[in-house]
Amino acid sequence: MIDHIEIRTRGKGLHEITGMVQSVVGASGAEEGLCTIMMQHTSAGLTIQENADPSARHDLEGWLDRHVPEGDPHFTHVHEGPDDMPSHIKAALTATTLSIPIVRGALALGTWQGIYLWEHRSRGSTRRCVVHIGA
Amino acid sequence: MIDHIEIRTRGKGLHEITGMVQSVVGASGAEEGLCTIMMQHTSAGLTIQENADPSARHDLEGWLDRHVPEGDPHFTHVHEGPDDMPSHIKAALTATTLSIPIVRGALALGTWQGIYLWEHRSRGSTRRCVVHIGA
Amino acid sequence: MIDHIEIRTRGKGLHEITGMVQSVVGASGAEEGLCTIMMQHTSAGLTIQENADPSARHDLEGWLDRHVPEGDPHFTHVHEGPDDMPSHIKAALTATTLSIPIVRGALALGTWQGIYLWEHRSRGSTRRCVVHIGA
Repeated sequence: MIDHIEIRTRGKGLHEITGMVQSVVGASGAEEGLCTIMMQHTSAGLTIQENADPSARHDLEGWLDRHVPEGDPHFTHVHEGPDDMPSHIKAALTATTLSIPIVRGALALGTWQGIYLWEHRSRGSTRRCVVHIGA
Repeated sequence: MIDHIEIRTRGKGLHEITGMVQSVVGASGAEEGLCTIMMQHTSAGLTIQENADPSARHDLEGWLDRHVPEGDPHFTHVHEGPDDMPSHIKAALTATTLSIPIVRGALALGTWQGIYLWEHRSRGSTRRCVVHIGA
Repeated sequence: MIDHIEIRTRGKGLHEITGMVQSVVGASGAEEGLCTIMMQHTSAGLTIQENADPSARHDLEGWLDRHVPEGDPHFTHVHEGPDDMPSHIKAALTATTLSIPIVRGALALGTWQGIYLWEHRSRGSTRRCVVHIGA
């Protein structure tokens, strides 16, 4: 079964999509199987991260921003703005696809795990992910 | 088919789990298919790495430790200890899920590839992975 | 269904394999499903990146080369040459497996997405990926 989820982001950062993905799993009726999510953009990514304390996501975003900074004088791919090239590098360093087992109709995440869409563009955008549910 | 593997780590570093994952594949009876492994924690990860010379894993661990050091003054998520925030960043930079084809009843790894659980907490922990075997 | 693709690389960089992977999908006859690609080497990786402007791939390669440089005095795994240890670290920081949904017989990639084999050794090599097509 294939479905899509669409999220309007309004800036850089981690947007939780666990509930949206679980809704697709629920609608599929799958009791056991595998849920695969793929980001259809190269300037945003996916990650499974701690869903409890927001300071962890804040520090994660900060670390990546400091290590892949805008304005790196080595960048030549700059015509779409200073946040464009960092967004591609950040996407390459994190995940574009995630596959999560389904157990008893639910995503088999750990207690403190959430699924996040990681927006890397300053203005955000409408982001589309494909979700596949297999046996 | 869904199963779990549990590993008691005793500190940072790469712990090989190839044999444990292959045992799950063997028990499933699958001759051809796809084996997906998901780490149920956000302070440890998964990686496929060279299984021959341990110096490669030592240098890999060292590089990541130097680039995501404990005590970074930017970190605010520090109440669980200095190794906590680095562990989440390290997990985000590596894999949380891996999908490996099964050929003739075995994981279709390359000659020098092993599957590793990558512990990022100093004291280690009991780590749980979900394993899904699909057709 | 399982197949393989083999690519002869001649040096570091991103080699597009979207067409080769789509050929495997086409030959499988799958209209809907999941295509998983696994790199069988630990000194090369896989990534989904922008397929339009080559400057993005150039800057991506440059960033990774500067952050995981040859000749790092901390490296002990050096007997296969100065590009060996960086190649394992680069592979760990990017993807070894990718799972891409199939919709209407085609890889459900976004408009600007291409699948790339990322060679990290200076001389290149013959690289082999396993491709699994599931329902």
